[in-house]
Amino acid sequence: MLERIHSPADLRSCSRRELDALCGELRTFLLQTVSKTGGHLASNLGAVELTVAIHRVFDTGRDRLVFDVGHQCYVHKILTGRAELMHTLRQFGGVAGFPKPMESDHDAFIAGHASNSVSVALGMARARTLQQKDYSVLALLGDGALTGGLAYEGLNDAGDSHEPLIVILNDNGMSINPNVGGISSHLASIRTRKSYYTFKKNYRRLMAHLPGGQGLYRFNHRIKTALKKMFWPCTMFEDMGFTYLGPVDGHSIERLCTTLEWAKELNSPVLVHVKTQKGRGYPPAESNPNRYHGVGPFDIETGVSGEKKADFSAVFGQTLEEIAAGDSRICAVTAAMGEGTGLENFSRYYPHRFFDVGIAEGHAVAMAGGMAKQGLVPVFAVYSSFLQRGYDQLIHDVALQNLHAVFGVDRSGLVGADGATHHGLADAAYLSAIPNMTLYSPASFQELRDMLRHAVLEETGPVALRYPRGGEGRYTAGWNGTAAVRLREGTDVTLAAYGTMVNEVLQAADVLSERGVQAEVIKLNCIAPLEPELVLHSIEKTGVLVVAEECFHTGSVGQRLCEAVLARGIVLRGLRLLSCGDRFVYQGSVSQLRESVGINAKGIVQAVCEVCHGKDAT
Amino acid sequence: MLERIHSPADLRSCSRRELDALCGELRTFLLQTVSKTGGHLASNLGAVELTVAIHRVFDTGRDRLVFDVGHQCYVHKILTGRAELMHTLRQFGGVAGFPKPMESDHDAFIAGHASNSVSVALGMARARTLQQKDYSVLALLGDGALTGGLAYEGLNDAGDSHEPLIVILNDNGMSINPNVGGISSHLASIRTRKSYYTFKKNYRRLMAHLPGGQGLYRFNHRIKTALKKMFWPCTMFEDMGFTYLGPVDGHSIERLCTTLEWAKELNSPVLVHVKTQKGRGYPPAESNPNRYHGVGPFDIETGVSGEKKADFSAVFGQTLEEIAAGDSRICAVTAAMGEGTGLENFSRYYPHRFFDVGIAEGHAVAMAGGMAKQGLVPVFAVYSSFLQRGYDQLIHDVALQNLHAVFGVDRSGLVGADGATHHGLADAAYLSAIPNMTLYSPASFQELRDMLRHAVLEETGPVALRYPRGGEGRYTAGWNGTAAVRLREGTDVTLAAYGTMVNEVLQAADVLSERGVQAEVIKLNCIAPLEPELVLHSIEKTGVLVVAEECFHTGSVGQRLCEAVLARGIVLRGLRLLSCGDRFVYQGSVSQLRESVGINAKGIVQAVCEVCHGKDAT
Repeated sequence: MLERIHSPADLRSCSRRELDALCGELRTFLLQTVSKTGGHLASNLGAVELTVAIHRVFDTGRDRLVFDVGHQCYVHKILTGRAELMHTLRQFGGVAGFPKPMESDHDAFIAGHASNSVSVALGMARARTLQQKDYSVLALLGDGALTGGLAYEGLNDAGDSHEPLIVILNDNGMSINPNVGGISSHLASIRTRKSYYTFKKNYRRLMAHLPGGQGLYRFNHRIKTALKKMFWPCTMFEDMGFTYLGPVDGHSIERLCTTLEWAKELNSPVLVHVKTQKGRGYPPAESNPNRYHGVGPFDIETGVSGEKKADFSAVFGQTLEEIAAGDSRICAVTAAMGEGTGLENFSRYYPHRFFDVGIAEGHAVAMAGGMAKQGLVPVFAVYSSFLQRGYDQLIHDVALQNLHAVFGVDRSGLVGADGATHHGLADAAYLSAIPNMTLYSPASFQELRDMLRHAVLEETGPVALRYPRGGEGRYTAGWNGTAAVRLREGTDVTLAAYGTMVNEVLQAADVLSERGVQAEVIKLNCIAPLEPELVLHSIEKTGVLVVAEECFHTGSVGQRLCEAVLARGIVLRGLRLLSCGDRFVYQGSVSQLRESVGINAKGIVQAVCEVCHGKDAT
Repeated sequence: MLERIHSPADLRSCSRRELDALCGELRTFLLQTVSKTGGHLASNLGAVELTVAIHRVFDTGRDRLVFDVGHQCYVHKILTGRAELMHTLRQFGGVAGFPKPMESDHDAFIAGHASNSVSVALGMARARTLQQKDYSVLALLGDGALTGGLAYEGLNDAGDSHEPLIVILNDNGMSINPNVGGISSHLASIRTRKSYYTFKKNYRRLMAHLPGGQGLYRFNHRIKTALKKMFWPCTMFEDMGFTYLGPVDGHSIERLCTTLEWAKELNSPVLVHVKTQKGRGYPPAESNPNRYHGVGPFDIETGVSGEKKADFSAVFGQTLEEIAAGDSRICAVTAAMGEGTGLENFSRYYPHRFFDVGIAEGHAVAMAGGMAKQGLVPVFAVYSSFLQRGYDQLIHDVALQNLHAVFGVDRSGLVGADGATHHGLADAAYLSAIPNMTLYSPASFQELRDMLRHAVLEETGPVALRYPRGGEGRYTAGWNGTAAVRLREGTDVTLAAYGTMVNEVLQAADVLSERGVQAEVIKLNCIAPLEPELVLHSIEKTGVLVVAEECFHTGSVGQRLCEAVLARGIVLRGLRLLSCGDRFVYQGSVSQLRESVGINAKGIVQAVCEVCHGKDAT
């Protein structure tokens, strides 16, 4: 079957039996692909029938399907002409693990951060209406995304907008608000019954053609709504102005198609509540969907993947747990990433001091502010790119009162296969620019331990620690308690870096040494407030500065060092600030990406050679 | 009466009649104060009884009262020992217009940005419980704040937390979600009736002392909830786990006290829905609450305030309206600030292209992304400090796809009397650091017109224009279309600035000229991407650079210029980067504040004298 599907249009001529067969084949294909490439498995297995049904009812080349987070888009990619490329999934230059409009017209919008889809879809629906076009707009979001305030803001506005717009809630029961589940299935079965639908449609058409019919219809509708509210449990979606359809069995293509067709006809804000099973069809993932949410390559037969190596997240969690044992003020906060940020054991040992607030980073930061104000020491562990959601709260609810809250900024810098939406390339600049914020950048596990302990127990204002995804490199030393440290003496060039970029710099220094260039290596431990003394002292000797950072260029530490250099009146013979540039970086392994933007050892060596030979100095 | 109230404790011995008299006196005092100082009037007039009742039932020196936005805190300030200072309201060194913990222990937390109070209060409640203390925690928020996703995130977590916490919804009907108003007053009257309350309390106590009583109580409670949901309309608050009390007449101290006492007893998450009238007691404000929301000094008798001078907001709105007349793709988006951002007429002339999404900046940005993707040109007019709420969406939903959305960043730089939470000191850094973003900084009305026209009609990616609160200064020229312009030739020092800071720089140049120092003045029109050519060219001549900016220091344009200076290999004799520093700035007039941080003409002259005479060079 799968080989016969060259475009979504081919789905429309399939029989029901053929579609069922197709779904089986899609699951096999997903397993074969993801077991080799790694990626998001359980959510894709759960969304097979839903994705097929969407493509049968809608034309995503014309209609706009907006994913939320979007890691459940693999089946969509397979059905829209990318099956043959799926072996390159999440690899450098290959198919992205998230929707990507540059890749296909069927990908309506970027996805990666949660809860934005309704807002985006509403924008598209409003554009459609203003431009007098008639395509459908769909937002497909998981139940987890509903905890994000952004989803609420979008739903609130969309429900009130009267814009035809279909929100599909893919509820795999992982974190849904309990009240949503409380809607009687009896009610749902009445509503989705074909005869009721046909009656309703004809009734509306009739009314539209009667003189005064529109008003009459609206009046009747109002009475009906009032009565319904009296006797039937309501949902927050209906309160917001949506027509609620569901819950629908998300593994029945027929019911899904019927409901989606009805939703399309309704021509108003509609919410379709679809119940799916995460991991569906692959027993290991069905029984442990969390473990198969995002995976590395694994063996299909056994479900076993390669052993997980020690990483910064685990070190962070373990250290926090140790500190918390001796200090009852310490709390851990997470925004639905307890596992990802290494807090699993903390949550087990200190359940009363562990707060998972759902995908709600702004709330997490503001709540941490309240905790800190009353004397607790909240530690919010969060991915760098998601902390962007709490930017205003960092300023307003924490820094303005100089409150002692600690931020474990995980996945700083390049993260690899998850790509552009997930790299943490902004934190070095945006966190440094917040008054009162102290920002550490550990380069090794031991340094993370030392700095976290210091941040929690000895600092007084807001402190953030930025550390990368994955493990440490050759630099494994602990922290000496200073803002910067000289790792290597040299006379010809000063190399400065922070975090695990010091590994690239040290390697570059080795290579340069072989070529007769003696590099002095300065590692910055604390990048805000910046103490440039050691760097200045070094360049007074070497006269050449090369800084290598895994961040956007504007607002980089290198630029801040330049002020210090000029203020001191030091005359440089050469300068090169290496960064990821002022551009977005896509997916690949971290080493591929560092190579591609020129911030690996090779790029640093090349930069040094260029500046030392007096070439172009920027 | 008012003179007899030295602390909130004095309220507790007052009779009902005395309290009524006090409320009258408070209104008179408010009017007298605000008519002289300017400030937020209507919301404070509406919250008189509510504030008195809160202080009668709770002890804000011990219990924690968290305001939301907080401009309705004047009565609270009067009652907590600051009555005699109210004539200094919002003035430099005087009483802040928002809650400020540095000012009084009765101010539990910073307020200024909407929708954070439930999150903060929940953090405090959790701290209270972990520390085994027993104070009450209250969040007082207006109905407008409920449109913010942050409020939803907080409510969602709080309702589920079982933490004793009282959320007081001060509903003055200005933007409340219609469903909230749909709760039957019959239901409310039953619930707030004393006998029902007493019965419920005793029933709970009885159950607590019976063997197995707790379980029985919970079972009964569940049946009751299910039945109630069957027959009574539910509210989103109950769905979230709150006990809902209300609606309560917010101008009846007795009913307010009864309800608040009950809420205190309930020992769980409670939402008290209070109906108030904005502007209550002052007829001009009652009939036009919007106009008296925030006011300058005015005449109490006539209600007339000084004529409003032309400002950047009005120029922005008017220009956008003109451009929109000729281009149907152009839409205006606002987050509950249509009036403040000058979009009133736009909304009148182009209602179908005007979108007020409520206090929901993240949604506004993401929605603009969706609009832009489908071919509209959305223009989101928003205050600088509130756009911080949309930081992640700017990156993820707009810049990553290089979408053509335009941001009118109003209230950039120092805003004056609203103080620390409202200054726009972060935008120059955080907007510049977003890849693909173009950032203009008009210095005059005509320049704003020219740049807005260019941004909307000729640019293709995301564009932001940052402009200050208030009017223009001596610089009134239009835009010549370049990234930077030389305003004045000189040989001794290069002064660089952008936005209305050029007025300070020009004045400084005049003063310096009188002292025999010829300053060259470079005005930066576009600060991202930065084109430093003109500055570099100038300092090659002068050898001295002084940059003056109204922003935080880290990430400033001056630091970025330093990179360019070093990269070009220019040797400076002197450098001074003037900014607001890496610190928060409080309230005062803009000129007082510029003086206090040293970025006015006087400060610039002083800096030039210091660097030209070879003193300390930073």
